[in-house]
Parts: sequence; structure tokens; C-alpha cells
Amino acid sequence: MADQGVAALLVCTEPEVRYFTGFHTPFWQSPTRPWFTVVPPAGKPIAVIPSIGAATMSATWIDDVRTWSSPNLGDDGISLLVECLREVAGTDGRIGLPMGPETHVRMPLADLDRLRSIVGDFVDTTAIIRSLRMVKSEAEISKHRRICAIVSDAFAVLPDLLSTAMTERQAFAAFRGEILSQGADDVPYLVGATGPGGIDDIIRQPSDRVIEPGDLLIFDTGSTFDGYFSDFDRNFAFTHATHDAKDAYQAVWEATEAGLEAVRPGVTTTQIFEAMNAVLEGYGSLGNDVGRMGHGLGMQVTEWPSHTANDDTPIEENMVLTLEPGLFWAPGKAMVHEENLVVRSTGAELLSRRAAPDLPII
Amino acid sequence: MADQGVAALLVCTEPEVRYFTGFHTPFWQSPTRPWFTVVPPAGKPIAVIPSIGAATMSATWIDDVRTWSSPNLGDDGISLLVECLREVAGTDGRIGLPMGPETHVRMPLADLDRLRSIVGDFVDTTAIIRSLRMVKSEAEISKHRRICAIVSDAFAVLPDLLSTAMTERQAFAAFRGEILSQGADDVPYLVGATGPGGIDDIIRQPSDRVIEPGDLLIFDTGSTFDGYFSDFDRNFAFTHATHDAKDAYQAVWEATEAGLEAVRPGVTTTQIFEAMNAVLEGYGSLGNDVGRMGHGLGMQVTEWPSHTANDDTPIEENMVLTLEPGLFWAPGKAMVHEENLVVRSTGAELLSRRAAPDLPII
Repeated sequence: MADQGVAALLVCTEPEVRYFTGFHTPFWQSPTRPWFTVVPPAGKPIAVIPSIGAATMSATWIDDVRTWSSPNLGDDGISLLVECLREVAGTDGRIGLPMGPETHVRMPLADLDRLRSIVGDFVDTTAIIRSLRMVKSEAEISKHRRICAIVSDAFAVLPDLLSTAMTERQAFAAFRGEILSQGADDVPYLVGATGPGGIDDIIRQPSDRVIEPGDLLIFDTGSTFDGYFSDFDRNFAFTHATHDAKDAYQAVWEATEAGLEAVRPGVTTTQIFEAMNAVLEGYGSLGNDVGRMGHGLGMQVTEWPSHTANDDTPIEENMVLTLEPGLFWAPGKAMVHEENLVVRSTGAELLSRRAAPDLPII
Repeated sequence: MADQGVAALLVCTEPEVRYFTGFHTPFWQSPTRPWFTVVPPAGKPIAVIPSIGAATMSATWIDDVRTWSSPNLGDDGISLLVECLREVAGTDGRIGLPMGPETHVRMPLADLDRLRSIVGDFVDTTAIIRSLRMVKSEAEISKHRRICAIVSDAFAVLPDLLSTAMTERQAFAAFRGEILSQGADDVPYLVGATGPGGIDDIIRQPSDRVIEPGDLLIFDTGSTFDGYFSDFDRNFAFTHATHDAKDAYQAVWEATEAGLEAVRPGVTTTQIFEAMNAVLEGYGSLGNDVGRMGHGLGMQVTEWPSHTANDDTPIEENMVLTLEPGLFWAPGKAMVHEENLVVRSTGAELLSRRAAPDLPII
């Protein structure tokens, strides 16, 4: 903040507020109330929040909790926020707000415009937040390790839970229940699909489609322990699979190996992308529509950075990352693998238990 | 849109995009990519989305799906969106965007500022979206009815699942598992707390606190079926409860009765608030910090309107609402009740199974 001449930093989304305060509640799903946290150049952050959150916020490390009764159609916290920003930044100090990629401002645009008309334009502080959140503490890493172990255990017993003649909806419910019974706090993200001989879409919700012999299945889950995510997938075939499907599986498995080899402090996300992409091209990939081959992982199911052809983010020790190579191996048939890791001085330390090298058949 | 002279309507949040398109995926939890839908004055909406969503979006009723490969740090969909907006609205047609209470714009502020510099200022269309979403179709109501029945069944067996000597974390897991096994698709929202003789905070996540004789417990869940929410709570005591706690329970139960009596087309949210508040004041309420006594329910766990002292929204047939009277019955001790209903021409039709009139003791 000092380097950028920022006198106060304002954040207003769930992960940002939680990052600075520890305030952890699913209450954010209600769009009704805005929540603010002001980070001063020195000392603890200040919470400027609806009074319904006062007790939960007061149980965190934050001492200064300022509240108003929300919803208030006339002034939903803006005056209280302005007062706090002026107190911290003075009348002419620059106020920072994340405005760049992967951010948004969680308050009504009319209120944001009013706020800007009072305190002036904000300085973009995406880089500050991004640099803090991309590198994890050992406390954060231990939460990632725990949820990745839980989901690995759930994937390990999945072949015993699933069978042909189940519907997708039943398969999702069985897997979600298993993850929870293994000790996850929640399964906020679960997508997947089944398809005859292959899958055209990897972000779908379940249908009543019945699983049949010859189907492929993908499950991709972001599950949480104490507010930190896993994010990896597994692929299965039922009763049998084609040679081409097995080849596609091998391609993404080997691309993941290349990614794991490439990860170490000092390389870039682009180099990791290139290592994986070279393997896929060797297998005759028809490209993919994901736009990247993995990403950061943390309090959100995806975080900065992205492994793309031009992201070029330098990898640092204690980043938690996914590797997620994917390809279309035939028109409309996608195969995606994903693993989770933490970057150590010597290279990648896997957090997810490595997928089987050959397509598992149930 | 014609009344307001709006030539194109832009939306970019999960519930808004889903409302107009049917696009249903938890993929929105990833903050990486923006998603847009443009609603023309006539004809179907147009999806302007990352290519990773093309297959899922093409399976909806939308015909015109325009995609770009995202993430793209240089231009994450803005050019494609501008082209679409100009095609629909012309170069000088007014473009609407929800900017009012309970809305936000889900794209980086830097991109939004760039978009405004190209297409000009937006017109606030919160009222259009709000009026559409507040009144539910019978298809929507049937989803609410189903998830409310599922959660009612789960609450009914809760006394058999919980006992003293369990931790809060175990109690949460047992309840979440029961809701899922009863047929919910997901339990995105589950908050609650236990406390000796009373509860100070109703939006908390579970701790490792052990439940003891004399504790009160509240669970409040927003569970979903096919993307539509329930949102109601239940209170329990373990082994025994104080006279004051039982009285507080009776106060909010009777306030709910008064709310149920008050609900019918033509009254206002403020009148419903007043009906409930009068009962609570009669019981000597110390006020509450929730800021309202219920709200709309739909694709989000809370939606417009709010039952407050000055909301004044006219109630219409087929609104789906919660009644949520709450009070502090002693310093730091809160009691909140909640039920879900659909407004019919004759009054309230309950969707949740009515809570017991006396505090249940486990």
C-alpha cells in the first residue's frame, strides 16, 4: 500500500472480507445487504457491516466493528463507509479497490457511483490482494491438504457406490453424501456428466439420464474444509471403454505428469501450460474450450493465476495450484484431468491422491 | 422495457442470467470469467458467454449463443458484448442494467468502466427485473413446495438425529446429510448455533463446541431443488429450557401466526411487518438486529421484497415469501422463527410445515 501510495484499501466480496477478517458465513448468498472492510496502512482492518453480522464478526480477530441496521433503502451503509474511509485515508488520501481480472464490486452500482461521487475515483489494488492471496500460509495449506485427502478417499470408494441403471441425479447424491460422510464441511461445487462413449460438457448439473454400459462419467468437485477448497476431477467408464477414450485418458494423465515435472518456483504459468500442451498436441488434441489448463486454489474454487499461453505469472513457493489439462479427443467429446498441489522449493507436492494411470472401469 | 424506453437489457449475475436463459451450473463460484445475457425488446435473449459454457447454454431454450475463449486478460468478452448491445439497441438506444438494491454488477470494475465509456451510461432496470422475479409461476412454486416438504421432513426427524455430547460440527453434518437423503439437490445455506440457555448469533458456522443439557439450538437452512430455495429455521432445546426461553419461542410463534393472518394480495410488506411486530412488542421484545421480518424467496435464498417498517411493497398473488419474526428476549439472547408461503387470492398457503407451537425439547 505504501509503494502504491494507497491510504486505505476497501474490499466488499466474501473471500476478500474473509481473508482480512476471518468472517466466515454462507450468509453472503443473500444479496440483500452490502458488507465492507477497510484496511488501513497499519493496524487491524475495520469492519463496516450490517448489524446482523456483528456477533459473528466480533468473534474474529477484528476489534473495530461498525454496524448499521440493514436493509436500509435510503442509505445502506454508504454514509458509515464514507466516514470510515475519511477517518483512515483523510480527505485526500487515495483509496484502493480491486478492479481487475477475477474481481467485482459487490454493492449496487447506484451506491458505488454515489460513493465515487463522494470519495473520488478509486485506485486499482488488484495486484496487492492478488499477491497476498496467491501464496498460502502453512495453516491454509493444511486445510487444503485435509479436504484433498477427504475427496481422494471419497473418489476411492466411488466405484463401489456407482453402477449402471442409476440416474445421474442418484450418482451425484451418492458422491456428495460420501464426501460429506468422509468429513468435508460442504460440497459447494459439484459438476459432472455421463455420456455414451464420451462427454460433451463438463460443467453440467445432473439430469435423470440413466447410466448405461459404455458410458463415460466425469465428476469434478470443489469441496471445502474450514472454508478452503479442493478442486479436482476423476473420470470413469462403465463396463467397457473404446480404445480412443482410453487414449484420451492417457493423454491428459501424461500431460498432468509433464505439468507436475514443470512446477517449481521461478517458472511461469505459461511454461507449465506449454509443458502440458505439448503432450496434448502430441496426442492429436482438437483443442479445448476451457481457456486454461489449471489455476490457483484457495478460499475460492478458482483463484489467480491461470495456466494459459500468455498468463506469464511467476510461480512462487507455497502457491496452491491445480493442473487441469483437457482436450477434445473427438468432435463433442471432452476429457479433462485435474490434480491439486502446493509448490515447494523442490517442486510440486501433490495434495490430491494421483489419478490412476489407466481409465478406471466400473 | 417499452414503457421505460429501454432498447436492450443487460444482466450478468447468476440468478439474472438463469432467470432469462435457464443456464444452471455452480460454475459461477469461479470468479474468473464474466457471463452476460442481453434481453432484446422482443424475441429470445442472447447469451454472450465464455466458450466453456457453450454446451450447457445450448441445451437451454436460448438459440443465439455467442462465445469467446476466457480467461482473456486483454479483452474478456467486452468487445463481443459491445457488438451484441449495438446490434440490439442501435448506436443510441438506451441500455438497461439493474443498479438498485439487492443487485450488483458481476464483472471487473475496470471492464465496467470501459464498457460505459463505449456504450454510455446505463438506465437502472432494477424495477423491471424485480417485478418479474417477485411473482412466481406455478412451475416455480412447485419447486419451492417440493424443497420445503423435503426440509420439513428432515426437521421432523432431527430430534432422533441429535443429542447432547455431539459437537456442533457433527450436528450440522447430520442435518445436512438428512436433507440430502430426503431428496434435496443441495444445501447451499446452513447456519445455526447452540448456546447455554440461548443463542447470541444466528448466522454462524459450526464449531467443535459440545452440545450440553440446557442448550438451545437453531438451524436455519436454504436448501434447493432444481435451483429453487427453501428458507426456514427451527429451534430446539436439549433436556430442558427456561420459562423465559419458552416464552420467547411462543412470542415468535404467535408473531408468525399474526403474519400468516395478515398476508393477502393488496396489503403491503410494511403491514405484514407491523402485524408481527405488534405481537413481539406485546411480549417485551428488546428489538432485533436482522433489519427485517422476512423477505421474498426464489432462485436466491433471499429476494425482494423485505418486510420492514418502511418497505411498503404491495403484496401480489403468487409471491413466495418468508415470515421471519425475531427478537432479543434477553441481552445477547436471540430467538427467530421462519416459515415459507405462497400468496394466494385468499391469503397465505404454507409451503413449510408449521413449527410446533411450543419449544420442542430433545
